[in-house]
Amino acid sequence: MLLSRRAIISSALAASGGALAGCSGTQAEPARVLAPKSPFLLVHGAWHGIWCWGKISPLLAAAGHPVLAIDLPGHGLNAAFPAAFDVQPRTAALATEPSPIAGITLADYARAVANAVESLLAAGFPAPIVVGHSMGGGAIHAAAELLGPGKIARLVYLAAFMPKDGQPMVAFPPDEQAPPSLLTPLLRSDPGVTGALRLDPASTDQSYRAGLINLFYGKVDAATARAALNLLSPDIPIGAMVTPIATSVQRWGAIPRTYIRTSADNTIPPVIQDLMVAQADTATPANKTQVLQLDSDHSPFLSMPQQLARALLSLA
Amino acid sequence: MLLSRRAIISSALAASGGALAGCSGTQAEPARVLAPKSPFLLVHGAWHGIWCWGKISPLLAAAGHPVLAIDLPGHGLNAAFPAAFDVQPRTAALATEPSPIAGITLADYARAVANAVESLLAAGFPAPIVVGHSMGGGAIHAAAELLGPGKIARLVYLAAFMPKDGQPMVAFPPDEQAPPSLLTPLLRSDPGVTGALRLDPASTDQSYRAGLINLFYGKVDAATARAALNLLSPDIPIGAMVTPIATSVQRWGAIPRTYIRTSADNTIPPVIQDLMVAQADTATPANKTQVLQLDSDHSPFLSMPQQLARALLSLA
Repeated sequence: MLLSRRAIISSALAASGGALAGCSGTQAEPARVLAPKSPFLLVHGAWHGIWCWGKISPLLAAAGHPVLAIDLPGHGLNAAFPAAFDVQPRTAALATEPSPIAGITLADYARAVANAVESLLAAGFPAPIVVGHSMGGGAIHAAAELLGPGKIARLVYLAAFMPKDGQPMVAFPPDEQAPPSLLTPLLRSDPGVTGALRLDPASTDQSYRAGLINLFYGKVDAATARAALNLLSPDIPIGAMVTPIATSVQRWGAIPRTYIRTSADNTIPPVIQDLMVAQADTATPANKTQVLQLDSDHSPFLSMPQQLARALLSLA
Repeated sequence: MLLSRRAIISSALAASGGALAGCSGTQAEPARVLAPKSPFLLVHGAWHGIWCWGKISPLLAAAGHPVLAIDLPGHGLNAAFPAAFDVQPRTAALATEPSPIAGITLADYARAVANAVESLLAAGFPAPIVVGHSMGGGAIHAAAELLGPGKIARLVYLAAFMPKDGQPMVAFPPDEQAPPSLLTPLLRSDPGVTGALRLDPASTDQSYRAGLINLFYGKVDAATARAALNLLSPDIPIGAMVTPIATSVQRWGAIPRTYIRTSADNTIPPVIQDLMVAQADTATPANKTQVLQLDSDHSPFLSMPQQLARALLSLA
């Protein structure tokens, strides 16, 4: 809770105890001095933007937390579109046209997150709780290594990539338990040709659209899932997904972290989530991952926003 | 600037002056006690959602202000889509299919804004500065009448509807100076049939898309305008636009207000903006509208975000 100047001062006097109160002649009131609450910095996943937090931000704000969501480079208002996306029915060019966002790098993502953290600190906010969803996990991961300890109160990986030192987001050690990718058959171009992982959220093929919903929004009500499909952008840069991310025990590894495990996730299977948590805990045995679980698809900000907000607020 | 608990207490003791400092033996430091900054509550316009504030929110937060943007009913994640929107090439059904959001009312908009204000106050934030863009102006207008004075620090009408008492958003007195509407030829259905003002942001007709950009984003760079087009939803309820909005001098009229005039606006022509300001000032001569001006199209959050942020911060 934020207090007015008068309340802060009178509360501080009250909190200073009887000696001061007696000295000044003021009767000590049973008031509380509460520190400003940590802001949440929300970082969306691939193909998404700040729009995805529309049900979460009001719940965090209603609990007294400042909230800032950012559009990563190439996403949301920063998205850029292949010309082939403006043509219906789709032509062969959709599979081959180079992506206008192919040049965006993991370092660009990391810098965007780090800049947001630095700007919050410079403005006088306490160190933020930094939440990364899915690919946004890689972005906060790399930003944490840039920033080092003391600037981020907690890293929160929400159904997110949290690769071990030197690994990229998408090259995991083979795991026989992992189901086959549901994303791969939905890609509309060869990333080696276009530089992008390209989806077609505006496809008129209803089975394709159902595939996207199954991938991202399996437990989301149909109307909200339809609205979310409309807001996705088609391209993300492949380079950022395959760039190794260096993390050190002294920098990234010194920041408290939470993993929010999504047990019905069709995008990042729970077995892979568990593997990443195990690898991180091996790397920093003195700073183990706190694990929370939601019985959620990949997008609890849409399928169970109340439960996700409660989980996030439990970390503050 | 928000301060830590320790800083607040020591600052309060310092601010209490020499008597207390001497009594406690603490040396008074030259610290400042700064009140928490007012939050900004951002309310988008028709067909838009929280995504439109992606360049503004980080600038306001970087100045120390909490920011909350909300999706109005029927917008952003709350949007709903006619089935005809999923078919390409478009069929005649786009012109006749009833809108799934036709039942949303002005009261629904007003309640959403009022609830957000109440939730910020309940969380301990100072009274917010409430910004409404375009149709969002009608939403904050009606919410202000619901809430009355004391709960909103300032109303900010950004290229927005600010009708006089008893008038709806879209029925202005005829004004010979007003240019013909650029919106009307872009509507894709008869609102009397579908219940919606229906656009087709995913049209494959490049001249139609250029028309939408000219209407909303005339001064926005091409890449950002393309990204914004992708994020628009097709339908808004006609009912909310034509419902008279009652405002009283004692409630809405008692709240300080600013109008941000957009001098190159193709959606709400400046002459209409001026008319609304004049009518408001006639209604509340003791509480006149502060007018700021940007040499902007209808969407300064995209065409000149730095200048808009400076204008908003000048009000805090």
